Amino acid sequence: MARGVFITLEGADGCGKSTQAGLLAAAIEATGRETVRLREPGGTKISEKVRAILLDPANAEMVPECELLLYEASRAQLTREVIAPALERGAVVLCDRYYDSTYAYQAGGRELDEGLVRRANELGSCGLSPDRTLVLDLPASVGYARATAGGADRMEAEGLAFQERVRAAYLRLAEEEPGRVRVVDASGERDEVASRIRGALADLVGELA
Amino acid sequence: MARGVFITLEGADGCGKSTQAGLLAAAIEATGRETVRLREPGGTKISEKVRAILLDPANAEMVPECELLLYEASRAQLTREVIAPALERGAVVLCDRYYDSTYAYQAGGRELDEGLVRRANELGSCGLSPDRTLVLDLPASVGYARATAGGADRMEAEGLAFQERVRAAYLRLAEEEPGRVRVVDASGERDEVASRIRGALADLVGELA
Repeated sequence: MARGVFITLEGADGCGKSTQAGLLAAAIEATGRETVRLREPGGTKISEKVRAILLDPANAEMVPECELLLYEASRAQLTREVIAPALERGAVVLCDRYYDSTYAYQAGGRELDEGLVRRANELGSCGLSPDRTLVLDLPASVGYARATAGGADRMEAEGLAFQERVRAAYLRLAEEEPGRVRVVDASGERDEVASRIRGALADLVGELA
Repeated sequence: MARGVFITLEGADGCGKSTQAGLLAAAIEATGRETVRLREPGGTKISEKVRAILLDPANAEMVPECELLLYEASRAQLTREVIAPALERGAVVLCDRYYDSTYAYQAGGRELDEGLVRRANELGSCGLSPDRTLVLDLPASVGYARATAGGADRMEAEGLAFQERVRAAYLRLAEEEPGRVRVVDASGERDEVASRIRGALADLVGELA
């Protein structure tokens, strides 16, 4: 059976992930391969409805367990409805955040019980793991300054100590699963970072221009 | 610390649960004790928004894992926002369906992986278990005939074999946890059943008129 490649981009706020996801998607598309670019939470009709509940400031009383389970519900729908079929078609799926974000932000940043977050991630991903996860890494103070330059959103408003815990959690994941999770230095010029990213994927998608 | 009593009512469709919940709530209220009557999914502003996604026929493409996680998200919010504080105040909380429904319908009826459903239930209940769960039990054919007399909803439309599996799952739970889960014969007159229910709670809430 033809099997695609599932790549996820991760990193703390302000790491340049969205910009790099666009550049990478264009580079893969240029090889002629079907490329599916996604962003969590969202990506299906049902996932977008769940996203709307998650991001609505009127839901300020949401408890952490509810938030966690809504992220996972949105992910389960995206995984079964979009990601798994695309991989079966042989596409490259490039997802801006996936379950490692839940680990880094909820277990790391918010300090929810780690076992609980891991169990939730298993459920929400329906057992599907990325083939490669790139963590765009910056000193937390640099990312934080970038992310808050235009005003802080709810997550960013958690402060620098929160972002330090998020970064530390990502680095732990890279130590635990060195085959899947690679840390990419996100400092320097945009094109330098893009080149590092392409280098960290060459074994999976070939050399990219 | 004052600690209330958490009672859940369970059973397959057509078992008379809603009617009995009303009678029981009135009987407990008549003792002067604070009684909080709830119904799943729902019961908080956020849980109702999740309920709307679950019950919207436009969301027919919802995958089973998403559905399961949405039920659990709704439950987590209800548990932390309403049930736990009420129990801390010393109230009697009477909930029409809780996590045993998820077990009976998803693991039993739909035959989802049992371990997966149990893990999801742990997350959604935030670790809170009912003090007593009453399973209103009827032969599946009797309940099914009652439930479908006025037209079948989505769950009821699954058919009689589905309802047989739901009933079997409830009976398994009663065997596994005989202290918490009690089977109540739901056949016969409404007032007879109500009397059996009160009898199965006397050790927790005292004699009810």
